[in-house]
Amino acid sequence: MLNLKRILNPNTRTVLNRILRGVSSSSSGVQQFNNNESDEVAQQIIKIDEEVAKLLALKAKISDEPSTPQKFTLKTPKGTRDYTPQQMMLRQGVLDKIIAIFKKHGGESIDTPVFELKEVLTGKYGEDSKLIYDLKDQGGEILSLRYDLTVPLARYLAMNKISSLKRYHIAKVYRRDNPAMTRGRYREFYQCDFDIAGTYDPMLPDAECVKIVSEILDALDIGDYVIKLNHRQILDGMFEACGVPVDKFRSICSAVDKLDKSPWAEVRKEMIEEKGLDEKAADAIGEYVRQNGNSELVEKLLNDENLKKVPAAVKGLEGMKLLLNYCNLFGLSNKISFDLSLARGLDYYTGVIYECVLKAEPKTSKGAQNGEESGTIGSVAGGGRYDNLVGMFDSKKKQVPCVGVSIGVERIFSVLEAKFVTEGVKTRTNDIEVYVASAHKGLHEKRLRILNDLWANGIKAEHSYKLNPKLLAQLQHCEENQIPLAIVFGDSELEKGIVKLREVSTRKEEDVAVDQLADEIKKRLRN
Amino acid sequence: MLNLKRILNPNTRTVLNRILRGVSSSSSGVQQFNNNESDEVAQQIIKIDEEVAKLLALKAKISDEPSTPQKFTLKTPKGTRDYTPQQMMLRQGVLDKIIAIFKKHGGESIDTPVFELKEVLTGKYGEDSKLIYDLKDQGGEILSLRYDLTVPLARYLAMNKISSLKRYHIAKVYRRDNPAMTRGRYREFYQCDFDIAGTYDPMLPDAECVKIVSEILDALDIGDYVIKLNHRQILDGMFEACGVPVDKFRSICSAVDKLDKSPWAEVRKEMIEEKGLDEKAADAIGEYVRQNGNSELVEKLLNDENLKKVPAAVKGLEGMKLLLNYCNLFGLSNKISFDLSLARGLDYYTGVIYECVLKAEPKTSKGAQNGEESGTIGSVAGGGRYDNLVGMFDSKKKQVPCVGVSIGVERIFSVLEAKFVTEGVKTRTNDIEVYVASAHKGLHEKRLRILNDLWANGIKAEHSYKLNPKLLAQLQHCEENQIPLAIVFGDSELEKGIVKLREVSTRKEEDVAVDQLADEIKKRLRN
Repeated sequence: MLNLKRILNPNTRTVLNRILRGVSSSSSGVQQFNNNESDEVAQQIIKIDEEVAKLLALKAKISDEPSTPQKFTLKTPKGTRDYTPQQMMLRQGVLDKIIAIFKKHGGESIDTPVFELKEVLTGKYGEDSKLIYDLKDQGGEILSLRYDLTVPLARYLAMNKISSLKRYHIAKVYRRDNPAMTRGRYREFYQCDFDIAGTYDPMLPDAECVKIVSEILDALDIGDYVIKLNHRQILDGMFEACGVPVDKFRSICSAVDKLDKSPWAEVRKEMIEEKGLDEKAADAIGEYVRQNGNSELVEKLLNDENLKKVPAAVKGLEGMKLLLNYCNLFGLSNKISFDLSLARGLDYYTGVIYECVLKAEPKTSKGAQNGEESGTIGSVAGGGRYDNLVGMFDSKKKQVPCVGVSIGVERIFSVLEAKFVTEGVKTRTNDIEVYVASAHKGLHEKRLRILNDLWANGIKAEHSYKLNPKLLAQLQHCEENQIPLAIVFGDSELEKGIVKLREVSTRKEEDVAVDQLADEIKKRLRN
Repeated sequence: MLNLKRILNPNTRTVLNRILRGVSSSSSGVQQFNNNESDEVAQQIIKIDEEVAKLLALKAKISDEPSTPQKFTLKTPKGTRDYTPQQMMLRQGVLDKIIAIFKKHGGESIDTPVFELKEVLTGKYGEDSKLIYDLKDQGGEILSLRYDLTVPLARYLAMNKISSLKRYHIAKVYRRDNPAMTRGRYREFYQCDFDIAGTYDPMLPDAECVKIVSEILDALDIGDYVIKLNHRQILDGMFEACGVPVDKFRSICSAVDKLDKSPWAEVRKEMIEEKGLDEKAADAIGEYVRQNGNSELVEKLLNDENLKKVPAAVKGLEGMKLLLNYCNLFGLSNKISFDLSLARGLDYYTGVIYECVLKAEPKTSKGAQNGEESGTIGSVAGGGRYDNLVGMFDSKKKQVPCVGVSIGVERIFSVLEAKFVTEGVKTRTNDIEVYVASAHKGLHEKRLRILNDLWANGIKAEHSYKLNPKLLAQLQHCEENQIPLAIVFGDSELEKGIVKLREVSTRKEEDVAVDQLADEIKKRLRN
């Protein structure tokens, strides 16, 4: 039959290799392509697209044949999950509390598409870029799923020439990361961001972000927490003071970032062996990053012989002093910690950085059962200042300074879910107030009339979608679903123009005239 | 230089054609492939994948070269948009009203991932499958963005073995369609679905879905509407009665579906010339599909000599009779129309189908300005019964009958946006209740203290993030943003332990003791 190997491989391999060598060997000369040569490249790209399209059409043709039967496991994609009605109630409860606090601070809401032009995301995430989901090239623009809500905000501000905005955005983001779902780490997950964009005086918006995180954690009541604070200028100043070469700042910074999970000895090893830092510099860093505290630590470092020679360090420390002062005015002094080991992974931060961690980390029961890593939930919020991101999108490089926080709601959902399971909490998953039940057959049209009247009065009501449901089954449905009230009637009630109104929890029944039903129900529901 | 045309096209075209002919000519015999032949096909697919990967690598190599410099316009992807704070307020207002009605009917909320395994979507959308967004193969599972919320619901029900559920789901779906954004047609858009899954008596859930659509349209108050009703069994019975061959039912059905946009003459032509139907059959269909009405039309068709011989038609008509009866009980008789021209595009419907259209279609001002097609908004809701979809996912083919409706919220947003623009409505985009203003410099710390007190009392408050804002600028901010109250103070007030509480709209000011500020503000806001 079809010998695809023979047919499709005439000498394509050799040929491709030749092309690749050709491009490669001339790569230093590529920039001097004249126009004809550029056109030629464009032509070649079109050719390739055509060939690819043909091959894919052929593949589709072959794959569709019933000779290759499809077996597939019924599942959601790796690292994702459905939300059940129970989980949705929990999720909505958490988000409502968070939104209320964002609004208390004047947040306005925006939304952006789930995907962006790939170029919008390029060059924003450093090493993490490999975790971006790309869409298939189906002709037209090249797209990627958003990786966070910060870069889309920056794109939005630049595109619309907005120079100040206090916005919140709650939406899903996508990372092809190694999922750890029992610990609330997914590939599709909610981010819940509050950011303040605009040119303002130092640390006033920055301090309010700390306040917001604190208010949210208090409102959610998931345990004691500490909000760690640091400053990129302090980190960079410290690296300079320790003799780290400038071109190693970011890579040494991402080594420091691992201190929340790894001991110093390991981080030190990474700095020296992997990142080529000399031992003396590493040890000097080690002295600094193991310190945390409050304003006293800032004063101590401002007097540090090595740091005070470095302008960046002094500037960062002065900023930190101001931030701690404002945080104290906001009543946060026992909830914050200036922590020199806090570094944060993302490239785009330029000033203050935050991270909020739960102190006594609750163990998720699932995690324990499955014998996974113990239930460290870790960070539940994080953020920082990024003054240069918007400018990357502006044609005239106009900057809009920004600072913001992101609430780790998935981790918070996980903590609360585990807590509910432990405590055996059973929440209702709908809001039905009245169930309309009939005592015998032939009453379904009457049920529809009553329902229609209740709905017209704004009462949340339902019935069985069966013509002749059993009375017991209907009443059981009410009890199982914690519906507060039931209407029960048969021909004998209808003859008298009444129905029985039943309080489900006590099973007490009372006669009510049909024409007063809606009013009586509303009265009962108010109480 | 590189002559790609010569190199990559040795005789690939001829070769591909040979293969395609080969597959095609043997297609009737394909199912008798022995194992060796299946293996061979699998091998061929792997080969194709390798060739494609090579070509794409080559393309990437060429494209990355600096000789083709990247310029990019700052925009959202084609067919998508950002939502501004104004639009978010509008959107949330609409969604809140819809959710309230879903809840009134006992809806529970679920959520599913934005992407599904590609296989989940395969074979569900007929001709529309080409509009599905695929994700790039980055290793691991092959994924596609969801095309609607119905197939994910069916997957969810089958995967979790759920046999009854009344659920709503409001989320974005993705279609690589030709966008018409001024008319509310996007590539990324919200769907807003209510579905009733379970084995129930005929038309009881189906009628409630019509009721829900009607309640929503009434609540949104966007003009008169009609809910068109039809039934797939009536359509199929009619096709049978008109002599349409069974294998043409779906293609003739999708021709009928175009009657809302095209005149009968055009649809007839498509049936005859494109779909190969004979003229007599087409004309017979033409007689039927131009009819619409109510129960009387059902009776007339039940007595139709040709239809009454076709069991499917009789069954469909009996169902329609029952549905119209229930709709009448729900007070919907002047809002519905049994319409034989309603067909709906999707393959998976098996029973009742719905579509709700606005009668007097408001013209969107944008559409008119841009000289686009006149502002026909068309359908604002649609749906139907799909009894076989869940079974497609169940390993034992266990069916869960479903019926549901989808509210076209994007079109509704467009109508309302245009209306707001016309009427000059300016909605507030945040909820701030009090602005804290200082009369001269040096008071920022005092502002922070007052804010902290207000926030602790649940009052929505903000201030300027500047150390020394001008008083006039602060007061203007309040007026522009329609903030109801402002606190104004300087040293002279502070010395007396008071601040001025200003009603922004009237500019009236009153002295209030600092320690009674929160209580006084709460009292004012209650009034």
